[in-house]
Amino acid sequence: MRLAVIPGDGIGPEVVAEGLKVLAAVLPPDVKLETSEYDLGARRWHATGEVLPDAELESLGQHDAILLGAIGDPSVPSGVLERGLLLKLRFAFDHYVNLRPGKLHPNAVGPLAGNPAVDFVVVREGTEGLYAGNGGALRTGTPAEVATEVSVNTAYGVERVIRYAFELAEVRPRRKLTLVHKDNVLVHAGNLWRTTFDAVADEHPGIATDYLHVDAATIFFVTRPERFDVIVTDNLFGDILTDLAAAVTGGIGLAASGNLNPAGTHPSMFEPVHGSAPDIAGTGAADPTATVLSVALLLRHLGHDREAERIEAAVAADLAERDPAAPRGTEQIGDALAARLAG
Amino acid sequence: MRLAVIPGDGIGPEVVAEGLKVLAAVLPPDVKLETSEYDLGARRWHATGEVLPDAELESLGQHDAILLGAIGDPSVPSGVLERGLLLKLRFAFDHYVNLRPGKLHPNAVGPLAGNPAVDFVVVREGTEGLYAGNGGALRTGTPAEVATEVSVNTAYGVERVIRYAFELAEVRPRRKLTLVHKDNVLVHAGNLWRTTFDAVADEHPGIATDYLHVDAATIFFVTRPERFDVIVTDNLFGDILTDLAAAVTGGIGLAASGNLNPAGTHPSMFEPVHGSAPDIAGTGAADPTATVLSVALLLRHLGHDREAERIEAAVAADLAERDPAAPRGTEQIGDALAARLAG
Ligand SMILES: CC(C)[C@H](C(=O)O)[C@@H](O)C(=O)O
Ligand SMILES: CC(C)[C@H](C(=O)O)[C@@H](O)C(=O)O
Repeated sequence: MRLAVIPGDGIGPEVVAEGLKVLAAVLPPDVKLETSEYDLGARRWHATGEVLPDAELESLGQHDAILLGAIGDPSVPSGVLERGLLLKLRFAFDHYVNLRPGKLHPNAVGPLAGNPAVDFVVVREGTEGLYAGNGGALRTGTPAEVATEVSVNTAYGVERVIRYAFELAEVRPRRKLTLVHKDNVLVHAGNLWRTTFDAVADEHPGIATDYLHVDAATIFFVTRPERFDVIVTDNLFGDILTDLAAAVTGGIGLAASGNLNPAGTHPSMFEPVHGSAPDIAGTGAADPTATVLSVALLLRHLGHDREAERIEAAVAADLAERDPAAPRGTEQIGDALAARLAG
Repeated sequence: MRLAVIPGDGIGPEVVAEGLKVLAAVLPPDVKLETSEYDLGARRWHATGEVLPDAELESLGQHDAILLGAIGDPSVPSGVLERGLLLKLRFAFDHYVNLRPGKLHPNAVGPLAGNPAVDFVVVREGTEGLYAGNGGALRTGTPAEVATEVSVNTAYGVERVIRYAFELAEVRPRRKLTLVHKDNVLVHAGNLWRTTFDAVADEHPGIATDYLHVDAATIFFVTRPERFDVIVTDNLFGDILTDLAAAVTGGIGLAASGNLNPAGTHPSMFEPVHGSAPDIAGTGAADPTATVLSVALLLRHLGHDREAERIEAAVAADLAERDPAAPRGTEQIGDALAARLAG
């Protein structure tokens, strides 16, 4: 297994270290793990002005998968690292499925604690929409400035992610798929999403489908998240909904994600949903669980289902035993998970 | 007071009737109320094919304010009434401030119950962004379809809503303003919003300001809503955040809104944030409180601050006495509020 690792900024390196520890603990002896670390992010940009040189992009592409910690720092102008590194990777490697499970873990604190039926997964489109970088500005800095951002939606891009979502719904016990959009306002994009959704639905008569406007969806995420199974949505709505999902299902410290290239033409990339959290970087307070669960997604993507399940079971057991009165640090949690898996 | 009333669809007429009942109960004897009702919405469209004829738009414009119940029905193709009626009114009457208070009422049920510090107001831009209707589609219905939606942001439009938000923050006790955007991805629009925000902030040294990405903002709405005072954001982010705000502060049955034309060149329009809820229309189960609170916003906008406060106090008292075991119907709640105000 050739794994590229981008620890990144803030708490990124800390959580990635624990993710790799758990990976090492769970891998079967016959799988040889080769990791190559890439020094990308705020530190590199400050030191060299480089964000993601072509040679490194090319070299990253030679791996089976990528594990990323977090990218971003307030000292870097907003957008430089996000557009130049994070989103560049998603676009260059055609990560058209951004998979983000939302599961209420045992012992989760927060508004939904004790609701065991919360188990959904958001399939977020990853390569189009408002993330296409198709905007511009005219007369910048004057009272006559106009700035635009264009959401680009193609039948090609919308159909493939919707197909993925239906196939995922087919293998889940509840077999339900919800499309989230805002087709009463974004009528052109909305029409493309809905007609494509309806057409693919005809090929999946066993899947129950429904549609929600994004604003209504946020309400249900808070009041009735157990109504969701698989959710498919565009890039920006998916960004917003998955942070909300993390908040309601036990916190951003547990939310994993996979940027998938299901066609396998480029490596897929796995990362926690949380950011670099510069405020707690270096304190050892970051919860590495989201990264560890991202490692599970990585393993499943590479066909190691059993190992993925073992990690998920270890996390569930760890969460069930957490004592809110005795919070543990980054390394302690990683060690505890690795110990469970070695045992 | 010349009031235009658009009861609309679903539960719209039911909640508007209670709103008018409360308005009548609170108005001082020297204010003569003249209401004109407009039959607009799904029924009208089915019967005549008309959505909002020019003559009616013109006539609506001759009023001091507009009270709207709800618009929309699943029997009408998505977008027809939203774009043709609701949004047309907001754009034609230049409702550039969409004001949506989020306050945790006493006795509120839900995740935040018992957090008295939750008292924020979202200032949503109402006339630009992705709501501008600036999209299109190419090769519709073919595998080569491309559908776009353009978010249009002008210095003119952004500055005036940001100025409004700062002025509102000046008269609130906590004097804090948060800008919500996604400037790490939507770099052009984000730059316009941030530079305008920073420039206007310089004129308001007494206001504490901060910035949040929209995805992070959803997390704080759930985990720490008491951190917010005034929030200013664009049209779509505001749409999403205010439904979420309603969900966390006691439910969509309590969320009021004002579509304001602060310049006074056209009438402002007041409406509950909830939709037409066709599933409960006619059952008398709709909570008219959001409409009643919208009437309070209407009164305040027209300078009747005392009457607005009386309504808000009556609602607070009513909520404090609600018995979850004995839910009341639409009319009962309206009657109870009117009785409180008459007494
Ligand atoms: C950092 C940012 C560009 C990114 C996104 O918007 O996709 C993040 O919020 C995420 O959800 O992975
Ligand atoms: C009905 C719809 C067009 C509207 C909007 O998106 O603004 C509604 O959701 C709202 O928030 O008032």
